[in-house]
Amino acid sequence: MRDLRLRWACEEAGLPYNVQTIPFEDRETNHLMLQPFGQVPFMSDGELQLFESGACLLYLAQKTEKLMPRCAIEQAHTNQWIFSALNSIEIVSVPWWFLNISGNAENDLTKWLSNRLDQLEAILSERDWLVADTFTVADLLMADVLRVPSVRAYGNRPATEAYIIRTTDRPAFKKAYADQMVHFELADASRA
Amino acid sequence: MRDLRLRWACEEAGLPYNVQTIPFEDRETNHLMLQPFGQVPFMSDGELQLFESGACLLYLAQKTEKLMPRCAIEQAHTNQWIFSALNSIEIVSVPWWFLNISGNAENDLTKWLSNRLDQLEAILSERDWLVADTFTVADLLMADVLRVPSVRAYGNRPATEAYIIRTTDRPAFKKAYADQMVHFELADASRA
Repeated sequence: MRDLRLRWACEEAGLPYNVQTIPFEDRETNHLMLQPFGQVPFMSDGELQLFESGACLLYLAQKTEKLMPRCAIEQAHTNQWIFSALNSIEIVSVPWWFLNISGNAENDLTKWLSNRLDQLEAILSERDWLVADTFTVADLLMADVLRVPSVRAYGNRPATEAYIIRTTDRPAFKKAYADQMVHFELADASRA
Repeated sequence: MRDLRLRWACEEAGLPYNVQTIPFEDRETNHLMLQPFGQVPFMSDGELQLFESGACLLYLAQKTEKLMPRCAIEQAHTNQWIFSALNSIEIVSVPWWFLNISGNAENDLTKWLSNRLDQLEAILSERDWLVADTFTVADLLMADVLRVPSVRAYGNRPATEAYIIRTTDRPAFKKAYADQMVHFELADASRA
């Protein structure tokens, strides 16, 4: 669930937040005014209502150098890697995952995914973080895209695996992940 | 080719630019330092080197209100629709197109694509532009995602079709498109 991305970013940044649950059932009608594609997450901050996890992360990142450097060139590079995560990796990894769970383990997206992950492996072999020698919101997003179990298990890419471990070993990820699990359990219990 | 997006944005904004060609052959080695995924476009502006069309558009849009309003909330909404174009529509339309040209006209992504395009049709039935009653870089990108011939021809969605016509009828699009065609013809001629 992509709402983890926003929890994690708020934890990294030390920004206060609270989480509300939207029922999965009837999601096509119960929040289309807030999210026309029927997805989570979406957020509000004062007057602002915002959807798309990438746009929400960018909005949060603009608040603090803990998520994005203040230098204009490094900010452009943070954006570059945010879009890489969503539009060069996830554009194939999510449809590939979807075809997989639909019963097509061997499908025509496999070579494309493999190629992208190999290219990323080459990059991650040469650096710890995507931008400017420091963790940014681009790493948060890229790691979240890569840690999807079927994607993570696909192929042997040691630099990518080390990157996922390095990134998800951060206290902010662990807290966000644990809180999300508790949240789902409580939501399940309230529906039972 | 996604380089059209940057030409178009520069034409809308009145920003001076020049275009260089990277040969498709050997692209895996000849520009991986500039674009690790072997894709176009990438751009440079002074010291900055940047890839990912979304990040390049956002960079250009920050220069001028012709591409993005100056109000913070409308800027966040412009980002929201940029990410919608790339991560809610293109995340399914490009893999769907790819499966199509690979010989799988009926594939498991069809229902997902259809659903996303229907949701977008509902939005475009109610407004001319995605953000704040005016053309922004989000419209440029969304229209470029939607005008892919096989995607455009898929289903009957009059508001979406009117939106594509409204957007690509702009002089800046026509100039960028015509210039790109000439550029490809010259590049082809020089290789013949």
